[in-house]
Amino acid sequence: MASIGTVSPQHMTFAEPLPLKSGASIGGYTLVYETYGTLNAARSNAVLVCHALNAGHHVAGLDAEGRAGWWDNMVGPGKPLDTNRYFVIGVNNLGSCFGSTGPMHVNPATGRAWGADFPVVTVEDWVDAQARLVERLGIRQLAAVLGGSLGGMQALAWTLRHPQRVRHCVAVATAPNLSAQNIAFNEVARRAIVTDPEFHGGHFYAHGAVPRRGLRVARMIGHITYLSDDGMERKFGRTLRAAELGYTTQDIEFQIEGYLRHQGDKFSEYFDANTYLLITRALDYFDPARDHGGDLSAAFGAARGNRFLLVSFTTDWRFSPARSRELVKALVDNRIPVNYAEIDAPHGHDAFLLDDARYLGVMRAYFDRVHADVAGAVPVPGAGDV
Amino acid sequence: MASIGTVSPQHMTFAEPLPLKSGASIGGYTLVYETYGTLNAARSNAVLVCHALNAGHHVAGLDAEGRAGWWDNMVGPGKPLDTNRYFVIGVNNLGSCFGSTGPMHVNPATGRAWGADFPVVTVEDWVDAQARLVERLGIRQLAAVLGGSLGGMQALAWTLRHPQRVRHCVAVATAPNLSAQNIAFNEVARRAIVTDPEFHGGHFYAHGAVPRRGLRVARMIGHITYLSDDGMERKFGRTLRAAELGYTTQDIEFQIEGYLRHQGDKFSEYFDANTYLLITRALDYFDPARDHGGDLSAAFGAARGNRFLLVSFTTDWRFSPARSRELVKALVDNRIPVNYAEIDAPHGHDAFLLDDARYLGVMRAYFDRVHADVAGAVPVPGAGDV
Repeated sequence: MASIGTVSPQHMTFAEPLPLKSGASIGGYTLVYETYGTLNAARSNAVLVCHALNAGHHVAGLDAEGRAGWWDNMVGPGKPLDTNRYFVIGVNNLGSCFGSTGPMHVNPATGRAWGADFPVVTVEDWVDAQARLVERLGIRQLAAVLGGSLGGMQALAWTLRHPQRVRHCVAVATAPNLSAQNIAFNEVARRAIVTDPEFHGGHFYAHGAVPRRGLRVARMIGHITYLSDDGMERKFGRTLRAAELGYTTQDIEFQIEGYLRHQGDKFSEYFDANTYLLITRALDYFDPARDHGGDLSAAFGAARGNRFLLVSFTTDWRFSPARSRELVKALVDNRIPVNYAEIDAPHGHDAFLLDDARYLGVMRAYFDRVHADVAGAVPVPGAGDV
Repeated sequence: MASIGTVSPQHMTFAEPLPLKSGASIGGYTLVYETYGTLNAARSNAVLVCHALNAGHHVAGLDAEGRAGWWDNMVGPGKPLDTNRYFVIGVNNLGSCFGSTGPMHVNPATGRAWGADFPVVTVEDWVDAQARLVERLGIRQLAAVLGGSLGGMQALAWTLRHPQRVRHCVAVATAPNLSAQNIAFNEVARRAIVTDPEFHGGHFYAHGAVPRRGLRVARMIGHITYLSDDGMERKFGRTLRAAELGYTTQDIEFQIEGYLRHQGDKFSEYFDANTYLLITRALDYFDPARDHGGDLSAAFGAARGNRFLLVSFTTDWRFSPARSRELVKALVDNRIPVNYAEIDAPHGHDAFLLDDARYLGVMRAYFDRVHADVAGAVPVPGAGDV
């Protein structure tokens, strides 16, 4: 397969304030994005990729430091979302710590960093901001919007808020809302961050501090929920770090402990605490049925012009297949075309980011179909590479 | 049903050092215990109850403050473990914060509180300490040893270390060892405690400090794993605390958040951080198959003279029924008599502490059988009350 090569992020600034679901608004904000492939003459081959908790606009190819994008196995020449056919957009959401306007940037009203005062943003707000960016790129209708986990929620929200501006929705390992248990895990992670003395009420930048201890614990909790019980057992089991037990309460005895600590340490080096709070809250708030008296089918009445692919993974206990089936039912209730694949994969929630032949095969087949649907008008060079 | 009424804890001090699995030993220690019912003349009707993570010796009846024991629905006159028939012993384990010698007591070698230097204790060490207490009470053989969760591990360990000194083992909602995921949750909780600046390396007593923030987070994590996903959904779902969303990252929006914070706050008021580390480590270390090359059946060869009741709960994802079935298999491999009940209960791991007619019925029936087994020699007054 050919490679995308090195990709440079682009910036787009929006002067007009964006009204937010909370009633607040944010103006003068910047979104960072990347694109891969070529927009065809009919502007009909654009696919927007929405990111989940700890990712951003760098979806595919290599960045300036040579790091591959977070979905580089999915997006590229000859890959399931084939950049020989599609013009793919990766965008970083508002409130993130990866370049788009977020809590570490200056609040024009105070001249200081937003910190904990950054407006609370929702999945719907992100989607509205993405819609403006897509419009500015001259794209009237996306061929598809694609995302996994929290990114899948954004893909779903596109069909509810801007159904005319997208044809296909591909939502992987996602859910129509968080369960009480999902919210509970988010809340523990937030408490770990907020009660870290280095958090300083969310204004730690001014103190030259970082609530690393809280971020570490938050990430360790999150990480457990991304992996399946079985997968963790197969990978780590009860394997000791040393040859013998050390009988210690504070040092590492089992390899799983070392692995989790490492994940927490890494995360605390690059992720922003306020962004973590914002993003977990966006997850908590997402609930399209809420404005329809809890009736998910009524909510998806808005999406009658769209077509869907939903994918779930059998060992995902964060957003289990049952949650995707709720979505399938809501779509079927509206006679909306939906394909649903339940992939028997051992990797838990993380499976949506990993290589699994059946999963990638389903994605490839669906994007072939999207191509046939949107490409009638314009032959796309390079499609024969597949 | 008659009531046990108010019960006073008793203390027993042991001068002879107890050798521990780590190679260390502890001398001059005290165990706190309570007893309910009357030891019969043959001393054949004693049942030892082992406690789990945050409980202690106060199993049944009322303490001086009028608080009911943690298994008061199981133990008492006319209850499944009927104190009209049985002499029941509740004992607090070494390292606890409820009265038996623990990290907040004085280390005779230094004249200061043990703190983080308290010896690392294992399930086997606890059982050896309990065996000494039982011996001092003049009981050569327990009719049964009973426990749930970590208490169930102690009940199992009795049959492996002191098989001649117990007839029946009743182990509820337990496992032959912790899975990688179980260890992972323990490790996150420990990191939350240890990285709390108020922990002071485990010597916070000397600083007049308490690592409450860490304890709160630890308890919140633990609590999520005690409840079933479905049970939490039924009890809390996505119910808001107020009529409308407040769009806030730090205040409570959902009732589940308030509930968890409350559990964390309560726990941090009474539980000791060093004890939490010790007890979660005892859980991590328990693994009777380890000394037999991972062969659980080989481990249970030691228990050939015992009889077992194992109980699990369908929605317990901490110690799932599959873990109890591993134990059943190991016992059957040894032709050891075992009864196994898998109770279809919605409450997750916590079910072992709750009222469920089928569960309590199984326990009652089994203790009836134990009674028939051990009571032949001595008629027990009051048994007709049942």
